[in-house]
Amino acid sequence: MTLETPFAEALQRKIDLKTKPVGSLGRIEALAAQIATVQNSLSPRMQRCQMTIFAADHGIAAEGVSAFPQEVTQQMVLNYLAGGAAANAFARSAGVELRVVDAGIAGDPMGAEGLIDRRVGAGTASFLTGPAMSAAQCDQALETGRALGGEGDWDAVAFGEMGIGNTATAAALGHKLTGVGLDVLVGRGTGLDDAGLSHKRAVLERAAARTGDLSPAQALAEYGGFEIAMMAGAMQGAAAAGKVVIVDGFIATSAALAAVRLAPECRGAMVFAHHSEEQGHGALLEALEAKPLLSLNLRLGEGTGALLAWPLLKAATAMLNEMASFDDAGVTGPA
Amino acid sequence: MTLETPFAEALQRKIDLKTKPVGSLGRIEALAAQIATVQNSLSPRMQRCQMTIFAADHGIAAEGVSAFPQEVTQQMVLNYLAGGAAANAFARSAGVELRVVDAGIAGDPMGAEGLIDRRVGAGTASFLTGPAMSAAQCDQALETGRALGGEGDWDAVAFGEMGIGNTATAAALGHKLTGVGLDVLVGRGTGLDDAGLSHKRAVLERAAARTGDLSPAQALAEYGGFEIAMMAGAMQGAAAAGKVVIVDGFIATSAALAAVRLAPECRGAMVFAHHSEEQGHGALLEALEAKPLLSLNLRLGEGTGALLAWPLLKAATAMLNEMASFDDAGVTGPA
Repeated sequence: MTLETPFAEALQRKIDLKTKPVGSLGRIEALAAQIATVQNSLSPRMQRCQMTIFAADHGIAAEGVSAFPQEVTQQMVLNYLAGGAAANAFARSAGVELRVVDAGIAGDPMGAEGLIDRRVGAGTASFLTGPAMSAAQCDQALETGRALGGEGDWDAVAFGEMGIGNTATAAALGHKLTGVGLDVLVGRGTGLDDAGLSHKRAVLERAAARTGDLSPAQALAEYGGFEIAMMAGAMQGAAAAGKVVIVDGFIATSAALAAVRLAPECRGAMVFAHHSEEQGHGALLEALEAKPLLSLNLRLGEGTGALLAWPLLKAATAMLNEMASFDDAGVTGPA
Repeated sequence: MTLETPFAEALQRKIDLKTKPVGSLGRIEALAAQIATVQNSLSPRMQRCQMTIFAADHGIAAEGVSAFPQEVTQQMVLNYLAGGAAANAFARSAGVELRVVDAGIAGDPMGAEGLIDRRVGAGTASFLTGPAMSAAQCDQALETGRALGGEGDWDAVAFGEMGIGNTATAAALGHKLTGVGLDVLVGRGTGLDDAGLSHKRAVLERAAARTGDLSPAQALAEYGGFEIAMMAGAMQGAAAAGKVVIVDGFIATSAALAAVRLAPECRGAMVFAHHSEEQGHGALLEALEAKPLLSLNLRLGEGTGALLAWPLLKAATAMLNEMASFDDAGVTGPA
């Protein structure tokens, strides 16, 4: 206890005096404490959440590392804008506002109504033969993300992604950031069969061999994606603005890892939503010492896991703000 | 596939044609399928949920098996009615309506405004020396529960409990229903220390030795509680009325087990909310072949875990009802 700050002590006391056995709400109590700490308030607010989906394309997709063709990135963006994707259904169900950002989709700008244009380029280059993006593009993606993440007075923000090929990108980036092997980090993505998985691993082994040790910024430029870099910046911007950041699955966690390696102070704002079925997720979570709230065998992306976790943040905060203490309620404590 | 009904096939086809990789929403897909099956509809409704907290006292509490004194049952009932407990905070946060039933609290009727009186007695007798309740009382509790569970047009119902000593009751009942040892089933409840835990185990070993093999109905009368028996009936009544039943933690699962052993057809309506920290919960879940949605180290009861799981049912149903198909959205499928 001696290492705790007065704020942390007051917070723990407030939680422990609630009408329940001490510690009996388990991870909900820890979540409430984290939220209070991010907002630096014993009575934090957790009413409004915004989700941003960042969409971009990946040069590596040309190497046949995904079960779906690249045009699906654009088609799914239209699906989000029309309200028909899983992220839309979950966002409506949970009362979360959703916006969609073009961080760098292949081809000409879509010009779709409601799509926020923050294009860094028309998809990345293939990182099999050279850097995915230039250092200047990487900085632009991060800076654009920081501005987007800092906007508005949301209590929490969640980030989703769409980009055919981006589990390959996240695996390569995660490998360079952590040193964990590609055999661990490369998975089936949207549904590769065994042959597809072997091919994806072989492609990524070749791509990774192209470079040696890299700084976090170098790794992000060499092997990142526009949506991943922009999401990393958005996480930093949101954390700096005092917002809780709900981190989704494998790809979002690769962005969180890049964000934390570049700016460790943003880690405290991050709530990890779920443990994905995508095989590399566990290793990236470990690198961040993160224990997700949910484990529901999801492997969709789009921020869907983050949206499912959002009601837990609301409930944890309601516990802190609305529950009576033993004294308030006239309840006798343990003998 | 040949064993599937036309309804089950149509349901799986509807889920698989949604704009996402097949199976990528994992347990949410299975949950949606269960809800649709309970309601026998490809477009089920999951908008309104009611939670009922059953409160009662336990004769076994006189043997010192709980960290809290018996008067806390009444005090917590007043706390629920005043809106200050964890269950209230979570229910408000999730938009769930809450009611409180006196199933058999010790002493005179409380006469508290808003408390629903369905008292079977002034607490059970101590099952250390004789049956907790008579067969007639057990029938009354079950029948009263069935009526309460069948009321209203809720899409889903959740059940919570309050009763000092009721982890001891649930352990003894679970032991008689499954044959699993008391060393596995007896835990710390609201927070017993090691000495308290040893004492609780010794008391329950003596109590269990009082009888041999029992039918489910006999086990419920000999070792049950009024709130547990009434909850078991309510689960049966709700299932019979086509409602989804959200099962909370250790004590609620002992009620679910009794309900299923008495009427196996109610199992299909049950969604198991969370895996509790209370040590015996896993064994009772196994006996029901149940895999809970959440695992958040909760050990509070009151239906708190069920309330945290409710938004997942809403989201799963939104997926089924609101997501576009690949054809609807013009999205290309996998290669």
